[in-house]
Amino acid sequence: MAAAAGEVRLIGSSSSRFVLRPRVALNLKGVEYEFLQEKFGEKSELLLRSNPVYKKIPVLLHHDKPVCESMIIVEYVDGTWANSAQAILPADPYERALHRFWAVYIDDKWFPSMFGIAKAETEEAKAESAEQAWAGLKLLEEAFVKLSKGKDFFGGDTIGYVDIALGSHLGWAKVTEQMTGLKLLDEEKTPLLAVWAERFCAHEAVKEVMPETAKLMEYAKMRLGK
Amino acid sequence: MAAAAGEVRLIGSSSSRFVLRPRVALNLKGVEYEFLQEKFGEKSELLLRSNPVYKKIPVLLHHDKPVCESMIIVEYVDGTWANSAQAILPADPYERALHRFWAVYIDDKWFPSMFGIAKAETEEAKAESAEQAWAGLKLLEEAFVKLSKGKDFFGGDTIGYVDIALGSHLGWAKVTEQMTGLKLLDEEKTPLLAVWAERFCAHEAVKEVMPETAKLMEYAKMRLGK
Repeated sequence: MAAAAGEVRLIGSSSSRFVLRPRVALNLKGVEYEFLQEKFGEKSELLLRSNPVYKKIPVLLHHDKPVCESMIIVEYVDGTWANSAQAILPADPYERALHRFWAVYIDDKWFPSMFGIAKAETEEAKAESAEQAWAGLKLLEEAFVKLSKGKDFFGGDTIGYVDIALGSHLGWAKVTEQMTGLKLLDEEKTPLLAVWAERFCAHEAVKEVMPETAKLMEYAKMRLGK
Repeated sequence: MAAAAGEVRLIGSSSSRFVLRPRVALNLKGVEYEFLQEKFGEKSELLLRSNPVYKKIPVLLHHDKPVCESMIIVEYVDGTWANSAQAILPADPYERALHRFWAVYIDDKWFPSMFGIAKAETEEAKAESAEQAWAGLKLLEEAFVKLSKGKDFFGGDTIGYVDIALGSHLGWAKVTEQMTGLKLLDEEKTPLLAVWAERFCAHEAVKEVMPETAKLMEYAKMRLGK
């Protein structure tokens, strides 16, 4: 389903895991959009005006009306282009609640532990964060079994809400692996998630918007330098 | 709409702001439920089994299937008893996104500042948290104008998603006011919210489940003692 030029715009940055979420959602729905790249270290007038509370990307502009917060945008895209064969959230209220639960878990619990690995100042702190991140992935592997029901994605036959929530972290997870030498998505520890991660990154809706690890490494060095 | 005995159960505590949310939602929908009060300082076997990830209240059990996290439960209740005249979330995707945005703001930004007042160890820290809490309420007053469209509640004619998110904090806000002498919901600073708060507490779906300030004070003292 195509949108008229200018009708759908996304303020973001191609290196941001949170911006990746609405991009994947829009791709899944086949919605054309204009991508407005924010400059590193600056905030555009449009961003400040569109998200005055947080002043953060991503912001979706639909007919100039702003929608903020990555997973809220994903859900907005799902509800707005609802006729599409591709539903991001399941229709059943109980299934929806489970998907929401795990998406919140990923952002509130799992992401801080993964982020902690990169931020750790001692080997001890790094090891502790890594243990937490692996424990979280183990829980997510169990959730995968439950939600996917033997299919390819958390969302079943194709990418859904939890796939987007977790998959958006994969680019930076690879950077963390390269920088620390730790293997986060380990085929032995979480075999299903390891295969799922490859499948997610290779998906039509993802592969062109998933940032390359080398570019993220450059970006990470630039940020560390700043 | 009544539910058969045992069909709907809620694990919680009558002093918890987060447990209040599903209670108000169930009342709005006219759903009968059994309230399973957790003992102070203990966690029941049923709670540990129903919410193994967080081990936290509230947990809704519907035909023994658990739903966790207060606002996820509210949405589950809204989706499950959807035929009711009383919708908690608006149907329009853009309105839904706005309601979600402010509910997340309340929990992620506003609540920590209010909690910071009670926890502050110096007068300076207390004043700083109070300024943040007032600034947040000013934003919420503006959101109220936008969402309520001149009606009584964030949800319009009756209690909706943001009303539940913010209203559940009112009991503890009163305790904070009594303990610190600060006026949080100030008629001069945020006149619309001050009136809204009284209206919320007096609502049929709220008044019997809103904990009394005196009881919360007792509970706060017990916790401080522990």
